[in-house]
Amino acid sequence: MKILVINSGSSSIKYQLFDIDRKAVMTAGIVERIGLADSRIKHKVFRDGKPQEVVKALAVRNHEEGLEHVAALISDPEIGVISDPGEITAVGHRVVHGGERFSDTTIIDQEVIDVVRELIPLAPLHNPANLEGIEVAMRIFPAATQVAVFDTAFHQTMPAQSYRYAIPNRFYAEERIRSYGFHGTSHLYVTKAAAKYLGLPRAETNLITAHLGNGASITAVRGGQSVDSSMGFSPLPGLMMGTRSGDLDPAIVFYMGGKLGMSLAEIDRTLNKQSGLLGIAGSSDVRDVQDRMAAGEADAQLALDMYTYRIKKYIGAYMAALGRVDALVFTAGVGENSAFIRRRACEGLENLGIAIDAAKNEGAIDGVTEIQAEDSAIKVLVIPTNEELEIAIQTRDICKAVDQ
Amino acid sequence: MKILVINSGSSSIKYQLFDIDRKAVMTAGIVERIGLADSRIKHKVFRDGKPQEVVKALAVRNHEEGLEHVAALISDPEIGVISDPGEITAVGHRVVHGGERFSDTTIIDQEVIDVVRELIPLAPLHNPANLEGIEVAMRIFPAATQVAVFDTAFHQTMPAQSYRYAIPNRFYAEERIRSYGFHGTSHLYVTKAAAKYLGLPRAETNLITAHLGNGASITAVRGGQSVDSSMGFSPLPGLMMGTRSGDLDPAIVFYMGGKLGMSLAEIDRTLNKQSGLLGIAGSSDVRDVQDRMAAGEADAQLALDMYTYRIKKYIGAYMAALGRVDALVFTAGVGENSAFIRRRACEGLENLGIAIDAAKNEGAIDGVTEIQAEDSAIKVLVIPTNEELEIAIQTRDICKAVDQ
Repeated sequence: MKILVINSGSSSIKYQLFDIDRKAVMTAGIVERIGLADSRIKHKVFRDGKPQEVVKALAVRNHEEGLEHVAALISDPEIGVISDPGEITAVGHRVVHGGERFSDTTIIDQEVIDVVRELIPLAPLHNPANLEGIEVAMRIFPAATQVAVFDTAFHQTMPAQSYRYAIPNRFYAEERIRSYGFHGTSHLYVTKAAAKYLGLPRAETNLITAHLGNGASITAVRGGQSVDSSMGFSPLPGLMMGTRSGDLDPAIVFYMGGKLGMSLAEIDRTLNKQSGLLGIAGSSDVRDVQDRMAAGEADAQLALDMYTYRIKKYIGAYMAALGRVDALVFTAGVGENSAFIRRRACEGLENLGIAIDAAKNEGAIDGVTEIQAEDSAIKVLVIPTNEELEIAIQTRDICKAVDQ
Repeated sequence: MKILVINSGSSSIKYQLFDIDRKAVMTAGIVERIGLADSRIKHKVFRDGKPQEVVKALAVRNHEEGLEHVAALISDPEIGVISDPGEITAVGHRVVHGGERFSDTTIIDQEVIDVVRELIPLAPLHNPANLEGIEVAMRIFPAATQVAVFDTAFHQTMPAQSYRYAIPNRFYAEERIRSYGFHGTSHLYVTKAAAKYLGLPRAETNLITAHLGNGASITAVRGGQSVDSSMGFSPLPGLMMGTRSGDLDPAIVFYMGGKLGMSLAEIDRTLNKQSGLLGIAGSSDVRDVQDRMAAGEADAQLALDMYTYRIKKYIGAYMAALGRVDALVFTAGVGENSAFIRRRACEGLENLGIAIDAAKNEGAIDGVTEIQAEDSAIKVLVIPTNEELEIAIQTRDICKAVDQ
């Protein structure tokens, strides 16, 4: 079964075509800078496991043109991997916000489209772009089943004590202001992988999963289900990120808006785009900030102190929330690749049952990798995440379920 | 030595007169509703340990008139406890915000007054009222040494990784936007009391101190010093409080200001005055909310679930931050009086080394009281706080230090 996974952003479309029975990526790429003069497609073909990349500068005026180019490349007589776009059974779409309505992956029909549109006020940056991807894919792959996989779905199991904010009830009742949590597909993927690795039924597995990428969130998993997560109503709070502030006294917004005369839009931009590692150290890239720290830059040292201290506090908070933890999981770009961040985040947690083995932590990460010390009561795992594969699997599963 | 302690608010003056050598309160009271038609003074005299209360309806147009009434009552021929206000050696003032300038109690001179005034943008509600109390006290008690005890001072030992927010550096460099922490006098008082009780030098004592009153904050204490605290730039974030929201995704402010069209002043009022227990359960009083829960009200149950869950998460976070904890301390109105809140906040923390003994927790609190179970690795203490006494002691100490 061929499944195309699409992550449609405001000016880009990322895609991967899976031969899902083999769990193999056939081709993958990104259409970038849609609507701009220098739009282009980076397209990779995997043959015998080796990627070949094609970069084409192309006028891509909108998402529809972008996805048409993708369809053409996929079935190109020379570099294509299928002979006809009609071979694609289903298209799995990453949709950021499913609100309280979607606690699971769903086949897209008009009602689903309407709900995703209704949720735009909750995800003004993401849901419109996701919708555009869905509508374009329905035209270009009319025979394929269109499936929505929501970034919020995994967190819909959170109890009210986790998802409610201590603000007047009407803001929840009328506006659905609550914590939703994000990165759900990744947290779910590593939860399943960890349970399998540990040899535990997922329903009996307690984890803390730290997804540390350019965005970053950490989730408390009890019995295989999300019971708390550090992102909230929006992807802004929680851990320090590449350009987002994470947790912040809301009174700072009052001060910026009042004494400093900044507009809400400016404050929003400041906290989402100019903060985090970028705001403190001048770069949003952990590798870059680590290099600057090594070169003696005090701001870089501070930024990484803050970054790791916050992860450590969330680990403690979620240990308290869960009571029993089988494993702490690091995943995503930073979580998989920065031994330094993992070491610093776990430093001093010995009394709580977490200790890292220095050599294992610095060693190669190959699939699920244990990095805890011998005497660590709690396992510490590094698990490469794969949101696209998880979307493809869920898309296959729901198609099969409907077929039966 | 007679020391008058003053806590001057926007429309009230609370006061206590100490015979500090005996650590005894001679008289205490409050001037209420200053500037309103129904202003009054509630004045208590302690004789042989028994309080006698006098309530006088009096026209009190401003703080100066209020404090003049206090001076007259204290030295009243009939109910007075001293023969002349001149007997008062020093006046200790509670000052909410000392910024980064004051990490300790200080004798008030013109420079101190200027700095407290400069800090008004950081504490717009409190510092102006505190200043008014200082200026009036200087006129009415001209012979007394005026001393400022700052609510933020104890937290000035926090390291940058705790006090900095992950926002662009200029907001710290130019505006001093950082976490300050509050309730410092109370956290310090119970820290000293806990170290003494545990028989440890304060410099070697690690604690988590939970000050749960109408306002609520929790502090990580390493080596007797504050290293992190849940309130931040303002007293808004952190734990859920009587009427304050505590931690909140700042994007909720953008939504309220944008989609809902609320002004920043309205949002500020909503989060500070209409949120917390009041926002969820309809009452800001924990006792009241406990009664409603007992009567089966679902909102009250939710409010207390949220309230205690947040305390629990902060306990875990600060255990991670500290590595080793000698004792968890509950203090202030709720912390001293609600066995239910203490029990729920500590539930499920056995794996982290904290377990409460049900009978001890429900029993009488008399001075420093241990409530942990036999097998609890970490002691759990209830310690009645006394911020006024701490202010009086610090005021005496600084006066003595200057005398030498």
